Amino acid sequence: MTRASAGEPGADDGDSVVYDLAAECTADDVEHGQAYLAAINGIVDYGVFVDLSESVSGLVHESVLEGTYGVGDELVVELEAVRDNGDMAFEPADVGDDYAVEAVAHDYSLTGTDRLEATIGDQIHLEGEVVQVKQTAGPTIFHVADEYGVVPCAAFEEAGVRAFPAVEVGDVVRVTGTPEHREGSVQIEVDGLSKLEGDDAEDARERLAEALEARAEPHDVEPLIDWPAFEKLRPNLQEVAKLLRRTVLEGRPIRVRHHADGDGMCAAVPVQIALQRFIAEVHEDENAPRHLIKRLPAKAPFYEMEDATRDLNFALEDREKHGQQLPLLLMLDNGSTAEDVPAYETLSHYDIPIAVVDHHHPDPEAVEDLLDAHVNPYLHDEDYRITTGMLCVELARMIYPDITDELRHVPAVAGLSDRSKADAMSDYLELANEEGYDDERLQDLSEALDYAAFWLRYNSGDQLIQDLLQIDSNDEERHRELVSFLADRARDDVDVQLDAAMPHLEHEDLDNGAHLYRIDVENYAHRFTYPAPGKTTGEIHDRKIEETGDPVITVGYGPDFAVLRSDGVRLDIPQMVTELEEEISGGGVSGGGHLVVGSIKFVKGKREEVIDALVDKMEDAEIDEALSSAAPIDD
Amino acid sequence: MTRASAGEPGADDGDSVVYDLAAECTADDVEHGQAYLAAINGIVDYGVFVDLSESVSGLVHESVLEGTYGVGDELVVELEAVRDNGDMAFEPADVGDDYAVEAVAHDYSLTGTDRLEATIGDQIHLEGEVVQVKQTAGPTIFHVADEYGVVPCAAFEEAGVRAFPAVEVGDVVRVTGTPEHREGSVQIEVDGLSKLEGDDAEDARERLAEALEARAEPHDVEPLIDWPAFEKLRPNLQEVAKLLRRTVLEGRPIRVRHHADGDGMCAAVPVQIALQRFIAEVHEDENAPRHLIKRLPAKAPFYEMEDATRDLNFALEDREKHGQQLPLLLMLDNGSTAEDVPAYETLSHYDIPIAVVDHHHPDPEAVEDLLDAHVNPYLHDEDYRITTGMLCVELARMIYPDITDELRHVPAVAGLSDRSKADAMSDYLELANEEGYDDERLQDLSEALDYAAFWLRYNSGDQLIQDLLQIDSNDEERHRELVSFLADRARDDVDVQLDAAMPHLEHEDLDNGAHLYRIDVENYAHRFTYPAPGKTTGEIHDRKIEETGDPVITVGYGPDFAVLRSDGVRLDIPQMVTELEEEISGGGVSGGGHLVVGSIKFVKGKREEVIDALVDKMEDAEIDEALSSAAPIDD
Amino acid sequence: MTRASAGEPGADDGDSVVYDLAAECTADDVEHGQAYLAAINGIVDYGVFVDLSESVSGLVHESVLEGTYGVGDELVVELEAVRDNGDMAFEPADVGDDYAVEAVAHDYSLTGTDRLEATIGDQIHLEGEVVQVKQTAGPTIFHVADEYGVVPCAAFEEAGVRAFPAVEVGDVVRVTGTPEHREGSVQIEVDGLSKLEGDDAEDARERLAEALEARAEPHDVEPLIDWPAFEKLRPNLQEVAKLLRRTVLEGRPIRVRHHADGDGMCAAVPVQIALQRFIAEVHEDENAPRHLIKRLPAKAPFYEMEDATRDLNFALEDREKHGQQLPLLLMLDNGSTAEDVPAYETLSHYDIPIAVVDHHHPDPEAVEDLLDAHVNPYLHDEDYRITTGMLCVELARMIYPDITDELRHVPAVAGLSDRSKADAMSDYLELANEEGYDDERLQDLSEALDYAAFWLRYNSGDQLIQDLLQIDSNDEERHRELVSFLADRARDDVDVQLDAAMPHLEHEDLDNGAHLYRIDVENYAHRFTYPAPGKTTGEIHDRKIEETGDPVITVGYGPDFAVLRSDGVRLDIPQMVTELEEEISGGGVSGGGHLVVGSIKFVKGKREEVIDALVDKMEDAEIDEALSSAAPIDD
Repeated sequence: MTRASAGEPGADDGDSVVYDLAAECTADDVEHGQAYLAAINGIVDYGVFVDLSESVSGLVHESVLEGTYGVGDELVVELEAVRDNGDMAFEPADVGDDYAVEAVAHDYSLTGTDRLEATIGDQIHLEGEVVQVKQTAGPTIFHVADEYGVVPCAAFEEAGVRAFPAVEVGDVVRVTGTPEHREGSVQIEVDGLSKLEGDDAEDARERLAEALEARAEPHDVEPLIDWPAFEKLRPNLQEVAKLLRRTVLEGRPIRVRHHADGDGMCAAVPVQIALQRFIAEVHEDENAPRHLIKRLPAKAPFYEMEDATRDLNFALEDREKHGQQLPLLLMLDNGSTAEDVPAYETLSHYDIPIAVVDHHHPDPEAVEDLLDAHVNPYLHDEDYRITTGMLCVELARMIYPDITDELRHVPAVAGLSDRSKADAMSDYLELANEEGYDDERLQDLSEALDYAAFWLRYNSGDQLIQDLLQIDSNDEERHRELVSFLADRARDDVDVQLDAAMPHLEHEDLDNGAHLYRIDVENYAHRFTYPAPGKTTGEIHDRKIEETGDPVITVGYGPDFAVLRSDGVRLDIPQMVTELEEEISGGGVSGGGHLVVGSIKFVKGKREEVIDALVDKMEDAEIDEALSSAAPIDD
Repeated sequence: MTRASAGEPGADDGDSVVYDLAAECTADDVEHGQAYLAAINGIVDYGVFVDLSESVSGLVHESVLEGTYGVGDELVVELEAVRDNGDMAFEPADVGDDYAVEAVAHDYSLTGTDRLEATIGDQIHLEGEVVQVKQTAGPTIFHVADEYGVVPCAAFEEAGVRAFPAVEVGDVVRVTGTPEHREGSVQIEVDGLSKLEGDDAEDARERLAEALEARAEPHDVEPLIDWPAFEKLRPNLQEVAKLLRRTVLEGRPIRVRHHADGDGMCAAVPVQIALQRFIAEVHEDENAPRHLIKRLPAKAPFYEMEDATRDLNFALEDREKHGQQLPLLLMLDNGSTAEDVPAYETLSHYDIPIAVVDHHHPDPEAVEDLLDAHVNPYLHDEDYRITTGMLCVELARMIYPDITDELRHVPAVAGLSDRSKADAMSDYLELANEEGYDDERLQDLSEALDYAAFWLRYNSGDQLIQDLLQIDSNDEERHRELVSFLADRARDDVDVQLDAAMPHLEHEDLDNGAHLYRIDVENYAHRFTYPAPGKTTGEIHDRKIEETGDPVITVGYGPDFAVLRSDGVRLDIPQMVTELEEEISGGGVSGGGHLVVGSIKFVKGKREEVIDALVDKMEDAEIDEALSSAAPIDD
Repeated sequence: MTRASAGEPGADDGDSVVYDLAAECTADDVEHGQAYLAAINGIVDYGVFVDLSESVSGLVHESVLEGTYGVGDELVVELEAVRDNGDMAFEPADVGDDYAVEAVAHDYSLTGTDRLEATIGDQIHLEGEVVQVKQTAGPTIFHVADEYGVVPCAAFEEAGVRAFPAVEVGDVVRVTGTPEHREGSVQIEVDGLSKLEGDDAEDARERLAEALEARAEPHDVEPLIDWPAFEKLRPNLQEVAKLLRRTVLEGRPIRVRHHADGDGMCAAVPVQIALQRFIAEVHEDENAPRHLIKRLPAKAPFYEMEDATRDLNFALEDREKHGQQLPLLLMLDNGSTAEDVPAYETLSHYDIPIAVVDHHHPDPEAVEDLLDAHVNPYLHDEDYRITTGMLCVELARMIYPDITDELRHVPAVAGLSDRSKADAMSDYLELANEEGYDDERLQDLSEALDYAAFWLRYNSGDQLIQDLLQIDSNDEERHRELVSFLADRARDDVDVQLDAAMPHLEHEDLDNGAHLYRIDVENYAHRFTYPAPGKTTGEIHDRKIEETGDPVITVGYGPDFAVLRSDGVRLDIPQMVTELEEEISGGGVSGGGHLVVGSIKFVKGKREEVIDALVDKMEDAEIDEALSSAAPIDD
């Protein structure tokens, strides 16, 4: 009961106080031993009926009454008894004529979504923001987020008819209703739901915002290893963790798009599972983890217009059908470059925030305005050697620290997948070794992941990848066998590919002393199978480095593309592409990469000219034995 | 109450009439002040119980009875009172001994589906044709169409067991049941359902057919602009509108397949939404608009066997799973040519009507027998300048006139998309201008649509396209931004494509004085991206017309195809194709188009020979500066 | 009632026996005229209440009592009466002081799933193995298999909460519950469910295993025709039938992958339908036939890694979402070769048994260890002339003999599809003729199937194929029209293809006197349409055999493949491939087939060299006019 002034000094001293219940007060607002203003609304043989508020009324028995009464008369009463059936009996209160009247407002004390289990079956009040409005064939389900979580509130107007049509996503509301178990979750059966307005809304919003701000705060976890280079990126990563946690708290769905290779998987799966667990914690609806996050490999090494159009289309349909908010897009191991801009700009016309964690060479000035968060080692004078998987394991831990024990081996796998030469690799390997993953298994795992990703094409393959990575999975024997089997298959397929390709390798000694190897992967490698052209070129390159011990450049070309790898030679591929674009009219040249790794596209008919020009430039490239191309190549 | 002869002269004159209720009569058939034949079926202290029919019975109180009675005795009674609980009291009727007995049939007065809301909770009778029989895990749902609409009728035999197994789609039935609100719709809970036979069925069918005929009648809307050329097609279009309205009234699903370009979208989306709204009006089931119409872009510029097989497969599955009728196929901006015939013939083995609205050069003799309706300007000595979008905006309005205000700008967009030089374009543009769409936005919209259609591939992208076209959508600011963004992207991509292609254009001065340009789009344009070869060729052609001001022919060729555009030269492409087929043995030549726009396919190995022969023919083509190729080219 | 020793000699002789009911005994365990040990648990004016077990209690009326009693006293009683409401009255039993006490265990007499209909509404006991545990939003559904079938048992703990979490798939359990009709099926509402342990479990498992063994036994059907060659394969086929029946009885799903051609369809569809009908017989859940078997054409002539990864992914998801067991994979008309091994090995890490029925040249040593069953005519010195469709019609009949009448025409169609020259063909044709399928319709049907399979791509097209094959379908007129229409289309398309190709045929007279024809199907045939390269080559070959009457070899080659057909020449293609692999360094040669039919892959850039080397080998090949290539070629 909230007394307007009951708690203030002097309010209850002196003579008597008679309380005047507000119309909306309920039986819960009535206390024993207090006097209340009542109005007589009926007279019977055995007493009079009195009203204390709209819903509080009861009998004053004739045995305790004196005098005569008329309907409408005032009477000061106190509670005598509450019968088992809820009927209330009152008796006249002895307050004399001299009493102070105090207004009593209904006690709307709020129950947070963290205390619903304890109030199952009782009517409660709740304030929060509407984050989804789903019209079902029966009730309308309002998902309401308060300071503690998100709960579905079922309001029934008429079957299939929108209840409270004025209330929309984004409104702050007060819900009166009864928490019930429903389909394995808690759901509130709504008795009343009203939109807060003016100051009330303002206050509630402020309170919710503060709580959300606090709750979104990522966990302050110690990195798995001590690594100065990583420290530079940590604050950025914490921002992303906060953004993602906030997104979950706001009930907004998350769509993860990631590079379809080993490092991409090592990045996306931990974050996906961490988010699913956090969603399960926040949302009373047990289906929320499944409905609110979807992971999909990207079709290309950048975010294609086709993928963006499809994602937008699905998002709009989900909004239409399920009243969901539009999603946040999380790009992992992908998304930092100018090639992503058209897709981002398409989404920017809708309320779809975008966050990127990537370690490919970025074009910050092109993407920055379009992103809500961007983590990339190049933005901090680091490079691809800090792989996205390494970053995302820490990100997953910031979101949901309890996942840590399942992830200790993952950064090593991520690093091996992208052949990272980071100085932290030895620590990561050691960490994984301590978990029982020896170097061979880790290497196998990275090959197996890459191989599985290739055959899964554009499917997420959740369970299979979790079995492979042994996250949220528990059959270690199968994990081991599967890993070594797929790794062997991957290697066999590489051997078959190289058996076909190696005899066709063209060799040239460049003026600068480096070896140049060219391979026509369209004509001398099997198509549409593993390994794809990028990986095929990389494998050839690696063998030649080992074989020669000298600086090596390898070019794998198809009808309208070439992939480049260089070790010991400073190529500066972005510069080369820019020059080729200018020099070769009608070449349709585009491409990217960084110093020693990259790919170039051109129109089929200009292939020879483009590649000849490219090789000319390589002749003059500076030898720099420190430079290594052990970096991610996108197929 | 239906008296067998009550209304006939003499039947009620003279002495008394006693009515004999038929066994199926209900309390509704009993009227105050009339005498009824009753049979005593029980005797108690306080009176006797009498039966007037199987379900009508009541008490005659001993206080009003004289004499003695035995069970089975006849008694003539009249209604004394009906108690609140429905119990009836009778009293002996004073009819003397001399009375005429008249049989009374049960009053099966029918309640139309237009009056269900008013009869919620009351038992009613309904007659109609069964248009769908869906077995659910609970009841069997019969969708019944009467003169006014279609209502789901739920009959429960045993959970998941087919009720009334003898009743099938196409039967005319009488339903006795109670309308109830159910999942936001009205549904009839079935008490009884019987198939009408013989004359009853005949009569009902006739009545339903007449009503359906009347209700299918399209609205007689004034065309948006005054356009004599369109008038020639109007009766045809009205037939299609009637066919589509009838299809909805019959509860048959509609599958829309349309050309995946701007004009195709401008045609299909208005018709889709008009039909959805009409379905919502006709069907009590609120899910009907979603279940009964599906729109899909076609994979090719004609109806491919693959699409037809897939459509047929889905239709058969829907029939199997949901008891739906097979659909009507509506082909828009596609479907008039001989290339469509194999697909049509495949469907013709099933009950799948086909309607086509197209403006591509038709092969009427090839398709006519296979179509239930066919609208094409060429059938009326008009041509592609009347675009399908223009036609379909009028079609949508004939189906559901209230949609008009949302569509005034659409014909202009359709026309711009297909670069129509129709004389009506200025009126359409003006009409759109009046709605606030200036020429630039219209042009942008047509580019944006084309671009979005390209990236959507084979998805319908409902919400996105509606946002773009601003039909059934309401965020004008987003619409504007999205349109101009996508239009800019489209133009940028065209520029990139032409930067690669233009330097490789081969030029030749033909003997007839025209310029011939050839471009190898396989080797000198980017593949698998926007713009595709057809549009790339068109853009090059347009630039060259503008640049030279002379007659121009442009040929864009790939490994096994060529697209042709000609301005100012009379090519007669169909004739050329016919000649090439004959002249080049083993060329595998096929193709189509019309005078100045077309495409040709051939086998890869004969490309050079085919194109050389083609160019030879062009040398002799007649110059006719009036001829313009500004027409739809299919990619 | 199960008496511990009631039936043993001497137990009931002498004086009296008093029975002592076990705590779990119910009223059903109490018999009239027997004495029971009871305990007094309450005393009232009119008598005493006694307990005989936890749930059996009743009144002993004071009128029949003598002496005084205290709560807790023992009393020997017998049943006096059972009231309508189930209340029991007892009276003291006159047993004297000298009686033997015998323990009575609760009578858990089991009701088999074959008798559920008769016990609807009564509590029963059931023992069986848990074959699926599906958590719904409401109850947990345990699918329990006993000796007679599989029944869903719904246990409700709390909505969406896993009931009996210790019980898992594979456990043997005792269920106490009440069979009810539910959604068209029988379901048991669970009162209690316990895992059997120790000997009980052992005994039950043994009993179930024996029953399952017996029930899995395939039907001993006479083959449709008398055919000695087939007899050699019959025992093998019976094993597969048994394995499949056992799989159904165990509630394990089945995934069928089959060759996407006529013979593959003739093999897969009969087996699919036979299994569906057997599933419907075994499983009480009416959705089981739909959920437990899925048929899909294979993308390639072998089981690709991509298909296997996808299948595994779906299987893991179904296990996750629906608690299903992992499936058995049934490969039909596919799957016998070394090319299938990587896919099989991938699956082998999970509990996914694999059975193969194929007639392509097998690599038994490569696949044998990976298969649970393998039927292939080559394993019995027979060959591809026994087509998979012929085998699978018999297999379907062994599984579900009632399907026989629908299948008599199918082996003939299968044989024609693969142009089998089996000596049984005439009998099969005659058998089909007797069913009203004349030779022309059979030939048409085989062409139509092939054509439909091509356009269905990777869809199963269930209904359409059943209409074509006229299995589980009943519109004969449509079947006839559809068959002849599709057959005509197929032939027309072949004609179009050959019109383009034939003029480009290169002819050569080989030294051994055979004709060699080569056709470049990439450059001189239409791509991505029917017929595909393999069939195109076959059609050319057939025409040349007919035209020349001489030994003919035909090679159809594309950029990186060649298909070979030979008649009258002993090529030994596997041997040729082995030699080419060795001889052509960097050729990437692989391939397979048998003596006179096969295909070869290579890298694009070595095409000429590979084909030249191939032709050189053909020069020396031995003429053997008996050899015919009329065999399945995979496109």
